[in-house]
Amino acid sequence: MTKTDSPLAAIRRTLRRRKLDALLVGQPQNRRYLSGYRAADTSINESSGVLLIPAAGDPFLFTDSRFDLQAAAEATGFEVRLYPRGLLALLETMLPRLGVRRLAFESHYLLHATFQKLAKMAARQRVELVPFTDLVERLRVRKNAAELAAIEQSVRLNEEVFREIHQGLRPGMSERQVAHAIENCMRRKGASGPSFDTMVASGPNGALPHAVPSERLLREGEPVVIDMGLVLAGYCSDMTRTVVLGTPDEKTVSLIRLVRKAQLAGLAALKAGVTGREVDRAARTIIVGGGYGDRFGHGLGHGVGLAVHEAPSLNKRYHRRLAAGMVVTVEPGVYLPAWGGIRLENMAVVTDNGHRLLNRDTTFLDI
Amino acid sequence: MTKTDSPLAAIRRTLRRRKLDALLVGQPQNRRYLSGYRAADTSINESSGVLLIPAAGDPFLFTDSRFDLQAAAEATGFEVRLYPRGLLALLETMLPRLGVRRLAFESHYLLHATFQKLAKMAARQRVELVPFTDLVERLRVRKNAAELAAIEQSVRLNEEVFREIHQGLRPGMSERQVAHAIENCMRRKGASGPSFDTMVASGPNGALPHAVPSERLLREGEPVVIDMGLVLAGYCSDMTRTVVLGTPDEKTVSLIRLVRKAQLAGLAALKAGVTGREVDRAARTIIVGGGYGDRFGHGLGHGVGLAVHEAPSLNKRYHRRLAAGMVVTVEPGVYLPAWGGIRLENMAVVTDNGHRLLNRDTTFLDI
Repeated sequence: MTKTDSPLAAIRRTLRRRKLDALLVGQPQNRRYLSGYRAADTSINESSGVLLIPAAGDPFLFTDSRFDLQAAAEATGFEVRLYPRGLLALLETMLPRLGVRRLAFESHYLLHATFQKLAKMAARQRVELVPFTDLVERLRVRKNAAELAAIEQSVRLNEEVFREIHQGLRPGMSERQVAHAIENCMRRKGASGPSFDTMVASGPNGALPHAVPSERLLREGEPVVIDMGLVLAGYCSDMTRTVVLGTPDEKTVSLIRLVRKAQLAGLAALKAGVTGREVDRAARTIIVGGGYGDRFGHGLGHGVGLAVHEAPSLNKRYHRRLAAGMVVTVEPGVYLPAWGGIRLENMAVVTDNGHRLLNRDTTFLDI
Repeated sequence: MTKTDSPLAAIRRTLRRRKLDALLVGQPQNRRYLSGYRAADTSINESSGVLLIPAAGDPFLFTDSRFDLQAAAEATGFEVRLYPRGLLALLETMLPRLGVRRLAFESHYLLHATFQKLAKMAARQRVELVPFTDLVERLRVRKNAAELAAIEQSVRLNEEVFREIHQGLRPGMSERQVAHAIENCMRRKGASGPSFDTMVASGPNGALPHAVPSERLLREGEPVVIDMGLVLAGYCSDMTRTVVLGTPDEKTVSLIRLVRKAQLAGLAALKAGVTGREVDRAARTIIVGGGYGDRFGHGLGHGVGLAVHEAPSLNKRYHRRLAAGMVVTVEPGVYLPAWGGIRLENMAVVTDNGHRLLNRDTTFLDI
């Protein structure tokens, strides 16, 4: 899309180009991105509403009476219609009225069971259903100035929470206790909540890249991996620090330095026009050089925005080029079974000439 | 299923009867119910694993390396296989090996986009895909003694949290503050977390049956609807109380009495063999008689178990008969725009002769 375009205008143009009459949008972040409507879905089975965006003409937000007021207040520019008898019944009256013959839908946010019902209705109405998986996501990848500001606020608050908790960390606290303290602090400071389940993994537990906080107590001298993020005004943050209570041993210090060096190499490689694979390789080469290539079993990073995991990816399989305005994590790690793990994660905006780091916290430089 | 059957044996018998060679189970509660594997899914896009249950032969749990240890520890009786190249690649080698020709899958927990990939692979392997929406859910509806005990524990802890918070309620606290205090208290007392977003709706906000906690401050004399539930050892609780700080006015008192009377009528109608519609009507008649029939806009109740919303339903459209061992909520309400709401919700087990109430808390009897 051109820079002056609104996301809605960009979608409408795509619809016209592909000879689609309308698009149904149920994916909550896409819904919010296009309409401003902030409701979340309790689950994919319990939708808070669906947008119907005609290629020409005014867009609609279909929802139920629970969200009536919120929809009208937030989705300005959208006509809000309620579906007392369910979405399908409303669609069945609206599609012919709007002359919809080819209807695009989000294949990646529609259950097979729901699709079957939709397909029956569409067959009755002689409407062709056309599946898409990233029509809106594609627009979300490059952030505008307002979005970058929102993400930066989210990162800033997340760091504030980290610093507060970090100061209070003591041997004898359990991983779960620390994770809860983090999430409580996030909410107290005004976040909607964590952007993913907070990870606190101490000692050997850190060897699992996605460890779940346990009753294990923090001990002196061991690395503790803390991976945390929050949602503020809809936008996510994501940061990992590996801290040590007391004095780290030499192995820990050298591993933290190795991982930090890999992170800096990844950041240095970040730039519009470079592929996700190339950035991953820049960081991975350092870990491989340190002799831990087989202990870095995940990708280097991922996009962050309204979702905490979104396009692009920084990993071996991602051959697409990055563009200015993308926001990514850079998070190399080393995981040693029975010993533990080290991971450092910052977020950065891709620019034409390189990147702009979103984090200010430098806890990993302490040692 | 017969009472002595394990859920797994019941599923296998169903598969044989329907000439299905195997069933794929990805829905997290179904997965846990059949295998004991407790991992949750971050989202429907980020699965923690899938069961493959052959009609004959040993069942499998397919997952990735993050869940390796947990899967082996919890899914006893299941052979754990990892899918380093993704589930589809593993299925493509396993299905022919197991001689699977007709494969059942959960249509209500498979995205259309994923189904399309699965269908391509199945076509290559000449495997027929057969969609189901409640093969496992059907078994989960009637709870066994161990499940009832787990649900009762969950209800008990939820009441303990309510009592603790209730004692500390003061005018000037915000709805959000109270909701957070509730969820913190749940976790502190050992719950995995809330079973749904805690609702605290004061004064006029209570007029929305699903209000989201706001910054509004509690005031004396107003009704405050608190709808809260937690997850303990996988099982959910769900309870609503409407409390008043200070002295309620006559209208509030008479509405609470009306709603309580409706609740008692619903509970009195509860019994194996009765339809969900009949129970709903028993309670609704009271609200209608009080002149508020059009102010009770939702169903009377729903099943609770591993999921906080599951079969059966108690509402106008539910014509199926209840059976002993089902666990339901009974939650009539009255919602008056601009004034506020009253809702009371308890949980009960359906028995052959009536019901057994799971709640002990009687806060609604205070006035």
